[in-house]
Amino acid sequence: MEDTKNNSDLQSLSEEENFGLSSDLIHAVEDALEESRDSDVEDLVEGLHEADTADLLEILGRDERYRLMEVIGAGFDPEILPYLDETIREEIVEWLGPKGIAKLVQELDSDDAVELVQDLDEDLRMHILAALPQAYRRVIEESLSYPEDSAGRLMQREIVAVPSVWTIGETIDYMRVSDNLPDDFYDIFVVDPRHHPVGFIPASRVMRARRHVRLDEVMDDDMRIIPLELDQEDVAHMFRQYGLISAPVVEASGRLVGVITVDDVVDVIDEEAGDDLMKMGGVSEPDLYEDVTDTTKARFTWLGVNLLTAVLASIVISLFDATIEKVVALAVLMPIVASMGGNAGTQTLTVAVRSLAMKDLSEANAARFVGKELIIGIINGFLFAILTGVVTWLWFDQAALALVIGAAMVINMVVAGLCGTLIPLGLEKFEIDPAVASSVFLTTVTDVIGFFAFLGLAAIFLL
Amino acid sequence: MEDTKNNSDLQSLSEEENFGLSSDLIHAVEDALEESRDSDVEDLVEGLHEADTADLLEILGRDERYRLMEVIGAGFDPEILPYLDETIREEIVEWLGPKGIAKLVQELDSDDAVELVQDLDEDLRMHILAALPQAYRRVIEESLSYPEDSAGRLMQREIVAVPSVWTIGETIDYMRVSDNLPDDFYDIFVVDPRHHPVGFIPASRVMRARRHVRLDEVMDDDMRIIPLELDQEDVAHMFRQYGLISAPVVEASGRLVGVITVDDVVDVIDEEAGDDLMKMGGVSEPDLYEDVTDTTKARFTWLGVNLLTAVLASIVISLFDATIEKVVALAVLMPIVASMGGNAGTQTLTVAVRSLAMKDLSEANAARFVGKELIIGIINGFLFAILTGVVTWLWFDQAALALVIGAAMVINMVVAGLCGTLIPLGLEKFEIDPAVASSVFLTTVTDVIGFFAFLGLAAIFLL
Repeated sequence: MEDTKNNSDLQSLSEEENFGLSSDLIHAVEDALEESRDSDVEDLVEGLHEADTADLLEILGRDERYRLMEVIGAGFDPEILPYLDETIREEIVEWLGPKGIAKLVQELDSDDAVELVQDLDEDLRMHILAALPQAYRRVIEESLSYPEDSAGRLMQREIVAVPSVWTIGETIDYMRVSDNLPDDFYDIFVVDPRHHPVGFIPASRVMRARRHVRLDEVMDDDMRIIPLELDQEDVAHMFRQYGLISAPVVEASGRLVGVITVDDVVDVIDEEAGDDLMKMGGVSEPDLYEDVTDTTKARFTWLGVNLLTAVLASIVISLFDATIEKVVALAVLMPIVASMGGNAGTQTLTVAVRSLAMKDLSEANAARFVGKELIIGIINGFLFAILTGVVTWLWFDQAALALVIGAAMVINMVVAGLCGTLIPLGLEKFEIDPAVASSVFLTTVTDVIGFFAFLGLAAIFLL
Repeated sequence: MEDTKNNSDLQSLSEEENFGLSSDLIHAVEDALEESRDSDVEDLVEGLHEADTADLLEILGRDERYRLMEVIGAGFDPEILPYLDETIREEIVEWLGPKGIAKLVQELDSDDAVELVQDLDEDLRMHILAALPQAYRRVIEESLSYPEDSAGRLMQREIVAVPSVWTIGETIDYMRVSDNLPDDFYDIFVVDPRHHPVGFIPASRVMRARRHVRLDEVMDDDMRIIPLELDQEDVAHMFRQYGLISAPVVEASGRLVGVITVDDVVDVIDEEAGDDLMKMGGVSEPDLYEDVTDTTKARFTWLGVNLLTAVLASIVISLFDATIEKVVALAVLMPIVASMGGNAGTQTLTVAVRSLAMKDLSEANAARFVGKELIIGIINGFLFAILTGVVTWLWFDQAALALVIGAAMVINMVVAGLCGTLIPLGLEKFEIDPAVASSVFLTTVTDVIGFFAFLGLAAIFLL
């Protein structure tokens, strides 16, 4: 029996997707929904992992999603909620209604419940909180009192903490009888009489030690302690830096109040990495599941800023309209200078933004980084000056024009290297997220300088 | 004693950096190195976590780095190596020499050793492998025989596997006496007589269960099994999707051969996220620590491709040089149309690339995504057509010119929306990484279409 199961597991693994949710399954569900074969839908969905059911809900169109919810009905597993994208989750929460959702929230771990409740609007949140048992409600409300995106919001309140004076035997006995513990856990935290964490022991080590051994003899006291207010980005960096599996969270007095585990941090890492990519691309947040109206609005703002900078570049060009009228080749060639500067600057900028996010770039090595990028700008500037110069010469047969574009290229690529480093470093210094604002500043500079240098030099030397 | 330690831990945590490696410490080490106060350097570095020592080595200049290595000398902890950036690691490996590095490799876990050895050049790798004890050498060589970036390379060979017929008591006794187990572990894998994994039990659950209980009564058989050849990107997705802490790796026959734990996956997630960001920014890989020559070369290639596309755009402009000569305002305004198209397309492209990487976008919802982005392109196209048209009219006082730029804007932003979705989806279909090639295709299209639509319409309607 076990073997058969295992073999079919392997078989599904060897499929292209490696996951429970194949395109075949999606199509089968869509067909069954369309033909109102409700019991077929139930059969198809039944064995799915909550994460896959969440994906299925996300991937369906809105009408199909509501139909699927109707079919699942009371059998809806609350564990699906944490896996849902925010936009789709709101839809589902609305569909379930305040009473339905309040019932489901109680079945979640406190950290998942907090994540769910914090995103709801004020009214609905109040409604749900009011429907919760008082003890659980207080836990949730306390978590919500911590700053958004802080360790306090991320942590789980269910924790295994034992006094350092206990022995391994006492610890195991306590864990066998206590029913107030999380289902599964990885590290046991050792606390002093004031409930301050003084060390931890991986569960595997407790199991392998002799019963009479005292905890403080086998515990690890080289431990990273996380303050409640620490930003989740810094929490993620700590886990990454030290390869942590779980870490204790303490309030200002030093008292142990919760634990953050690495699986929650994986979500944060994904989120932050995705956010940086989005911001660099001029999108405020991943909006795959947002509707057309919200997406259009969000994108409009960024495009509006870009229109302003494009107009600024146009104004620079208009300063030289008399020159262009005489040498129309300038209009043909000028986008090359601006575009090469923009691309070279973006390369530098991307490295700077990522290195700042990973805390690889700091004051200690900033000067070396700027220097290096400046040199690269100079070298690549000259190489592309030669290339572009030769192309121009062959194309227009004017040596002076070739020299002018070459000189403008060097200037703009050096400026690009400098701005690609100094803009993000400057923004970081003023605590502005370099990912969100850098690229618009950068391309403004490389456009303006690119056009100004090329057309300006042309006005001086070609007329 | 414990309290004091704990308090000072907290204090250092409340510092700006939250980590062991403060700028003050870096400066102190730099000063001590410069003044050849070797014992001071030793004192400063001694208490650092290996990850922090790795950061310190990365952040120093090359000469200082070698000086620090000289001071650390034989006391160099091999655990530092896995934390080092690849470029710096190569430098350190070279400094240590084949014999030195061979000695250190033996002290590492097999997955860390493989990661280290796989990046070395052929000669050095052979040299190190030859110096290893035969059993350990065979383990490493077997790992190296799996495809790069596969689960086989990522996994750890040290694993806790017990037969399903055992009881909890037998399992605990076995673990107490066996000295062939990993130091700490999270899940115990249960295997059938053929050594195929049939379930797992978190260590905490083993500890809390009664001794006489059989493993197959308490084990969890809803488990994700990873084939040896699975790409690390898919491994990461599996961990993320199902919130895994560790997962068994099996060879083609189904035999359990290793385990992947979430902390290794965190590195993969970071790497993949960083790689996508880099590729979108036109950088082949994070190159903060690369030297000027290598960085310049790598960046040159991408800029060269961009030069070709820029020249292509220039050729389009040159088709209309007669038109521009008559209406020089066209030269002033034309970058606006191209730039807005490029930015709108990049927004769409960024969402597509990220959604593909996170497997949120697939065949099942591709059509809906393209449709949505098309509508957004149309709406924002018209909005910016109006805005740009008004600006143009006020600036040049020519209604026809305003109409022409408006029409070109709509065309280019619709094209941008379509290309921002279809290019990455198409590349993904042909198994070309959409992050690396999409943006150059996209901006080529939006530049060419932008200039062609604007100047073409102008040639028809303004002359």
